[in-house]
Amino acid sequence: MAQTGGRIAGHECDRERFIGRYRSYRNPEAVERGQLENSEAYGDDPCGAIQSDLELQPGASADILVLMGVGRADVGERIREGYGTPARAQGELDALKGRLHGLLESFGVETPDEDFNHMVNVWNAYNALMTFVWSRACSLVYTGEGRDAFGYRDTVQDTVGVTGLIPEEVRRRLEMMLTGQDSTGGAQPQIRPWQHRPGQMLPTPAHEYRSDDALWLFDAVPAYVAETGDTGFYRTVLPYADRGEATVLGHLRRALEFNLERTGAHGLPCGLLADWNDCLKLGFHGESLFVAFQVRHGLRVYAEIADLLGEAAESQWAREQLAAFDPRLQAHGWDGDWFLRAWREDGVPLGSKRCEEGKIFLNTQSWAVLSGAAMAEQAVRAMDAVEQHLETEYGLMLCAPPYEKADHRVTRAVLMNPGTKENAGIFSHTQGWAVMADCLLGNGERAYRHYRAYMPAAQNDRAEVREIEPFVHCQSTHSRFSKKFGASRIPWLSGTASWSYIAATQYILGIRPEVAGLRIDPCIPGAWKGFDVRRRFRGKILEIRIENPDGVQKGVRRVELNGRAIDGTLLPIGRLEERNAVVTLGQRR
Amino acid sequence: MAQTGGRIAGHECDRERFIGRYRSYRNPEAVERGQLENSEAYGDDPCGAIQSDLELQPGASADILVLMGVGRADVGERIREGYGTPARAQGELDALKGRLHGLLESFGVETPDEDFNHMVNVWNAYNALMTFVWSRACSLVYTGEGRDAFGYRDTVQDTVGVTGLIPEEVRRRLEMMLTGQDSTGGAQPQIRPWQHRPGQMLPTPAHEYRSDDALWLFDAVPAYVAETGDTGFYRTVLPYADRGEATVLGHLRRALEFNLERTGAHGLPCGLLADWNDCLKLGFHGESLFVAFQVRHGLRVYAEIADLLGEAAESQWAREQLAAFDPRLQAHGWDGDWFLRAWREDGVPLGSKRCEEGKIFLNTQSWAVLSGAAMAEQAVRAMDAVEQHLETEYGLMLCAPPYEKADHRVTRAVLMNPGTKENAGIFSHTQGWAVMADCLLGNGERAYRHYRAYMPAAQNDRAEVREIEPFVHCQSTHSRFSKKFGASRIPWLSGTASWSYIAATQYILGIRPEVAGLRIDPCIPGAWKGFDVRRRFRGKILEIRIENPDGVQKGVRRVELNGRAIDGTLLPIGRLEERNAVVTLGQRR
Repeated sequence: MAQTGGRIAGHECDRERFIGRYRSYRNPEAVERGQLENSEAYGDDPCGAIQSDLELQPGASADILVLMGVGRADVGERIREGYGTPARAQGELDALKGRLHGLLESFGVETPDEDFNHMVNVWNAYNALMTFVWSRACSLVYTGEGRDAFGYRDTVQDTVGVTGLIPEEVRRRLEMMLTGQDSTGGAQPQIRPWQHRPGQMLPTPAHEYRSDDALWLFDAVPAYVAETGDTGFYRTVLPYADRGEATVLGHLRRALEFNLERTGAHGLPCGLLADWNDCLKLGFHGESLFVAFQVRHGLRVYAEIADLLGEAAESQWAREQLAAFDPRLQAHGWDGDWFLRAWREDGVPLGSKRCEEGKIFLNTQSWAVLSGAAMAEQAVRAMDAVEQHLETEYGLMLCAPPYEKADHRVTRAVLMNPGTKENAGIFSHTQGWAVMADCLLGNGERAYRHYRAYMPAAQNDRAEVREIEPFVHCQSTHSRFSKKFGASRIPWLSGTASWSYIAATQYILGIRPEVAGLRIDPCIPGAWKGFDVRRRFRGKILEIRIENPDGVQKGVRRVELNGRAIDGTLLPIGRLEERNAVVTLGQRR
Repeated sequence: MAQTGGRIAGHECDRERFIGRYRSYRNPEAVERGQLENSEAYGDDPCGAIQSDLELQPGASADILVLMGVGRADVGERIREGYGTPARAQGELDALKGRLHGLLESFGVETPDEDFNHMVNVWNAYNALMTFVWSRACSLVYTGEGRDAFGYRDTVQDTVGVTGLIPEEVRRRLEMMLTGQDSTGGAQPQIRPWQHRPGQMLPTPAHEYRSDDALWLFDAVPAYVAETGDTGFYRTVLPYADRGEATVLGHLRRALEFNLERTGAHGLPCGLLADWNDCLKLGFHGESLFVAFQVRHGLRVYAEIADLLGEAAESQWAREQLAAFDPRLQAHGWDGDWFLRAWREDGVPLGSKRCEEGKIFLNTQSWAVLSGAAMAEQAVRAMDAVEQHLETEYGLMLCAPPYEKADHRVTRAVLMNPGTKENAGIFSHTQGWAVMADCLLGNGERAYRHYRAYMPAAQNDRAEVREIEPFVHCQSTHSRFSKKFGASRIPWLSGTASWSYIAATQYILGIRPEVAGLRIDPCIPGAWKGFDVRRRFRGKILEIRIENPDGVQKGVRRVELNGRAIDGTLLPIGRLEERNAVVTLGQRR
């Protein structure tokens, strides 16, 4: 801590000396005394307080600059010399603002919904950036060992929301995560960058593997390649965490093999230590339908990548696996009106109408659609069941009804109050997937309604209900099963930021990068007469005007790029100029 | 929470409702309002507040009983029915006090030092009992995952201080710890009683073994047998944590083999993940002299147990191991004026006069003596070096000089301020060992001076220096290398309680249980003209009067038991009556 402009009249670094014994921030002794006494921190609780005595004549003003940082004193002194003037500090602040605004300009939208615009243009993107930077390390709620690292699945998903904003950083983060994958194909649960030594890490003990960790790569890696066109990334050779190495494509195949090699009684992937939902205790050989849908999604993505790279044998392998996998999903995944959540090791299903509690789970409905596993009629019925059983005015519940009688060895959710977090709370992370699924099905009205239900800005006038910031996403919101319906908890660092941003920009607005170009495929409320998007894509600027004169929810009739019609809905990269004007018309129903 | 006697006028279970937003415990809104509003806790921060409106006439009184507990409501109701009268509650409180006083009467002393008496008779014993009960789980400082379990080495040592008070509980705890030992001989770092399944636990990953964990059994198990005479315990068959089973004697042998099988370049035991001092990073194959002395101690104790049980082959094995081990200790442990602390994997010694920082460590001097490894002259020189380099008026420093330049990969101590905790602080846990070592050498004056230096009651008039309770031990005290010399931190739950109690009762006062009887072997300041001890031992009461007319520090001239002279200093168990009068005279020098 340092100050320039104004003589330093005293400082305090020991918090108790500043606040005083048996006092609090409400009445610090040092302020009452009016004089700091120059204490130094030496263990215990530190603080930073600088006193400057100023006398101002009427109308006069003075600038005081306070610099704060953590590090060695000699570095601090160099920084004070370099940055220690108000003008320089102002310049740095302006540069920082400029950088953030520059990033936020990667994607701008103007729709009829002002709240939606604010979220997409500023806060959701900023939220995703902060989550990418901090992971879960900066929390008033979660602390202690294990919270000082990059959790594997969180971190991989955190890249998804910022791929369009900071692709280079995303690539570096993905390389870290790919080299955090063991040669088994499973992933190290946590990565500590300062002690991450790819190729030399101890392999993860078999019982500590989560079943979903490495499967998130099938969302993150293709997103990076689609944004940048960097298909060579798939050929990049990277070490595994413990030993050996492979191309990124090889890493992806090992990830699939990891789950395909670990299947249970119905031939579906085991949940291992846990899948996405830590609370569910399936038994190590219990089977997770969520993971099954992730594997299906992974196989499909893998086949597409292999096709793209001309790796016919790899593509064929994936398609053969798919052909063997899908019948198992159909035979053991469908419950009649929706998809099951899991088969416990002891043969009991979770998320079935046969269950008394936890009859239906959200994630296996949305992922059945996202993965392409659901047949058309199943997809419709599953998402209708979501609306019927899980919708509330503040978002979709994770499951219903809540657990109140279950054995805590079956699900830890029973340890939570009904309507909170994993126990039939509105778990924000999952909302984006449901929105995306409804967009895939063409349900623009419902997707938008679900999106707005949990959109922070929509709660702007209900602070007394939400109780947290109305501009960032949070971990979860109390559902109608709770006495605090609508109260939200644990804002900022949540996988919600990533997926909500994708749901809004790529599914509702439908501006989706692909390796070959930019896809235009909105799915919106019929009442929207149109919207405008300004997007940066591979260094080019696109001004996209979507017109919806017929009030449709989905379906593009005609796309014009720089005044000329395009065949289909993809803006081919080869036809993009430095600046592009795009006009799209919604099709008549 | 429940109340009887006085109508309940309101309650509050949601803390924010009681305190109010932007308020603190200094000005709770509910108190200002004068009326509680019956909130229920539903997540977030709970509290328990009951309001009763009482009007008392002059001279009148009323009893209100408030019951608090955690658990199911139906259990709470049963308890309220059973205990919900002031008379019953008073009876329970009296019974609790009676039980604690009964335990504390196991050992009572009256010496010329009132502070010493208070510590031994009440507070040190109580401190040890609380530490046994809570382990390290009840702390304002340490929280989070890994702090919710019984740490192996802490827990084994915690039994040592309470063996004389609650031997049956100690036996059960020791059985838990013995069944927490893997079949490798190493120990599971942490035991969670509610999920401890001996014989079925996953074996500890090789790289997670601490080198000292199971070696503390050589202090705890013999202490239990000596207190109770229960030599059959050594024959009790108990499972290992992971698989297989053995007698307690077999467990002890595996513990020794574990370390003997894991030796480094000098044939000394490896430090593995860590020895007692977590801060030292020796490298996995670096060698710890502290552990070497523990192994030597263990071999000696094992040979004695084997002799006691008539297991000649076992005794011979241990003595052969000792004969092979001692020359290595002499060749690679002695630094010329004191004993080294460790050999790092890269060949660099720690705790050597060749070091610039951390030249001398306390624990390898005290343990060289306690283990019998030090030859007579080495023992004297090592403990003299302790006095010369490590003594301060508030206790002995863990090492000196502090680390300020070292690489944090060599010792994490460099991350702590000089003079604190493991970086040349006064680490309380270690003080008892030094006192015990000086007692073994006959240095009664010095042992007592070292003991008083860190004895909480001796700080009674220096609260502004000590800053914590003057009646319980703490983790550490700032040493003269710190700006807060004498300030103590982290009171209550520390291994200090156990070893200080042993040092005071068994080494300074010298009343030491052995399988064959009670040993009388004090080591005191010459100025003490005598002292009286009242001890319970195997159900019998001994009133022991120690007379020291010649002002010696050590050496017993004559022992009388119930009026008849005893040969030597052991009161044989066979000659003890229900109540016994013992008189001991210090010998002329």
